Amino acid sequence: MSATPKISPALKKRAAQIKLLLMDVDGTMTDGGVILLSQPDGSALEIKRFDAHDGQGLTLAHTAGIRTGCITGRESPALLRRAHEMKMDYIYMKIPLKLPAYEEILVKAGVKDVEVAFVGDDLPDIPILKRVGLAVAVGDAVADVKKIAHYTTKALAGKGAIREAIELILKSKGIWDELIDKARA
Amino acid sequence: MSATPKISPALKKRAAQIKLLLMDVDGTMTDGGVILLSQPDGSALEIKRFDAHDGQGLTLAHTAGIRTGCITGRESPALLRRAHEMKMDYIYMKIPLKLPAYEEILVKAGVKDVEVAFVGDDLPDIPILKRVGLAVAVGDAVADVKKIAHYTTKALAGKGAIREAIELILKSKGIWDELIDKARA
Amino acid sequence: MSATPKISPALKKRAAQIKLLLMDVDGTMTDGGVILLSQPDGSALEIKRFDAHDGQGLTLAHTAGIRTGCITGRESPALLRRAHEMKMDYIYMKIPLKLPAYEEILVKAGVKDVEVAFVGDDLPDIPILKRVGLAVAVGDAVADVKKIAHYTTKALAGKGAIREAIELILKSKGIWDELIDKARA
Amino acid sequence: MSATPKISPALKKRAAQIKLLLMDVDGTMTDGGVILLSQPDGSALEIKRFDAHDGQGLTLAHTAGIRTGCITGRESPALLRRAHEMKMDYIYMKIPLKLPAYEEILVKAGVKDVEVAFVGDDLPDIPILKRVGLAVAVGDAVADVKKIAHYTTKALAGKGAIREAIELILKSKGIWDELIDKARA
Repeated sequence: MSATPKISPALKKRAAQIKLLLMDVDGTMTDGGVILLSQPDGSALEIKRFDAHDGQGLTLAHTAGIRTGCITGRESPALLRRAHEMKMDYIYMKIPLKLPAYEEILVKAGVKDVEVAFVGDDLPDIPILKRVGLAVAVGDAVADVKKIAHYTTKALAGKGAIREAIELILKSKGIWDELIDKARA
Repeated sequence: MSATPKISPALKKRAAQIKLLLMDVDGTMTDGGVILLSQPDGSALEIKRFDAHDGQGLTLAHTAGIRTGCITGRESPALLRRAHEMKMDYIYMKIPLKLPAYEEILVKAGVKDVEVAFVGDDLPDIPILKRVGLAVAVGDAVADVKKIAHYTTKALAGKGAIREAIELILKSKGIWDELIDKARA
Repeated sequence: MSATPKISPALKKRAAQIKLLLMDVDGTMTDGGVILLSQPDGSALEIKRFDAHDGQGLTLAHTAGIRTGCITGRESPALLRRAHEMKMDYIYMKIPLKLPAYEEILVKAGVKDVEVAFVGDDLPDIPILKRVGLAVAVGDAVADVKKIAHYTTKALAGKGAIREAIELILKSKGIWDELIDKARA
Repeated sequence: MSATPKISPALKKRAAQIKLLLMDVDGTMTDGGVILLSQPDGSALEIKRFDAHDGQGLTLAHTAGIRTGCITGRESPALLRRAHEMKMDYIYMKIPLKLPAYEEILVKAGVKDVEVAFVGDDLPDIPILKRVGLAVAVGDAVADVKKIAHYTTKALAGKGAIREAIELILKSKGIWDELIDKARA
């Protein structure tokens, strides 16, 4: 996993400029599993499965001064806990149309499109992916998303795709090796 | 995922007529996992794992005016919540023999066999699959089901099989491209 | 899945005699996942993931008059619920050494070794596998188990291995085709 | 699974000396899934998925007199229950920097670096992996970890990687075959 393949000069240039890393949740930070636990009262609670390698990557991005955030159509305490563990700066839940949320984050963060990376997997991510400096599709994104991405990860969603995107950025900035020694569990 | 392969003229004709999309649940909308959580009182609660790409597909089918529903032998609040999230029109649970439920739905929906697609994976789905205009087997259906299907998805159950069936239908109708822009998370 | 490969005459002879199908649980009826849910009081509840195709197979075996049962070192309400759903005749939990339980079941069922099939995956299953008429290893059993099995399933544990063993038995008895029409969800 | 490949003389020498087997948890004993269950009060409970084959291996290691333990950055009742089931001697949770915990365990156990094996998958494991007599990377460890390991398992994390490491040790000591007969469920 995550032996990032050779990076082309054009891709490296894009990735080196990133100051803000945003991402979708279901099918991007997770493998797309919408997992529901039946309750005796007839309701159901949501379970989400995140990835430890992605988490380690987000911690490293944070150490490197890159801000992070997520924009998703769903809402759950599970995501909220994970986003807080990962010290994410921007958490936007219950967002059916993602572009306005994206633009709000850009203002808050004071960054330009070209300084933003977005990782996504499905149709609602397309409007943002067309705007950002580095558009990343996870390895099992739908065809329409892969078509417009600057980079498609070898890793699948929920199995290191975010980590691979972060390694791409940090290696393009030339700071990966120094970060390895700073890693904490 | 879901780069629908070339569609034969015969298959396209079948798929273009579909007004109602029905499906099995376990092993079709899920990967077949029957997941049980032990409770301190000796009982067990059921967990179901659905797929985000399938969900996005069902939302698009709904936008396109196609009605949807499920017929399953089991019963759980988890399925009920997911079916409601997906705005499914027909939810039939605890149905050991599926054909009578199928026929009841046809009357309610006012459609003919040839206007119905069914996605399934195992033996109890066979009587319906032999009736519908478009019989779809998931990629990991049992051999006896694949044998009688008009189309077997490349995607596995619970990993985009429903999405692939929906893309097949919407592309056969020639309305896929306009739907991409209407996608919401 | 479960397109049972050609059955050799020797294997067919073994499988045709089976009246009782016994199996291990973790790594055989499940994919080996020991899944634990942390509780606020510091304890943990166990989750088990069974397979719908295996369940359909067990229902067919039951219809065909074959008795079924499981012998496992662990204990959980999750297994108990699933075993009851599957109408298993013999449920032995918390069994560190499996051979005495096996012998007790044989007496209860009134069958001989040669009429029993056992499906297993790991070292504690070996003493029983050496006794039964049909010793089946799941596709991802450990090497020491595969070495002594009469048949190793193509399917992995928790993904149709039990179903494949049952189809092998019912096809060897020449009654598979008539059972297809009797399938219920 | 776990048909340990041929062991080189150098690797065998390392493995034969092991008296203490330590390991990371997320991405090593599990497949890296950080699974969270949303609660009605807005909090979330953690689920962990361990592996039955790994568990059987740890039981055998224990029978062979090898002490075992884990060092992890996270904390959960799920891990605690599993570690107790496995009769682990050393359980270190909430450890952001792992080396001090490692050194404390060595003193307690009265063993030297060369008598310790460590199994890991990600950057925080590197300082320990550089110290121990037998450094094992799981099959899906990150590239930086595989680079410094003496052995990378064929098995993936949470799917037999620990078991494979234990078989390597017990076979190198020449005691595997006698242990098979002592296996309990």
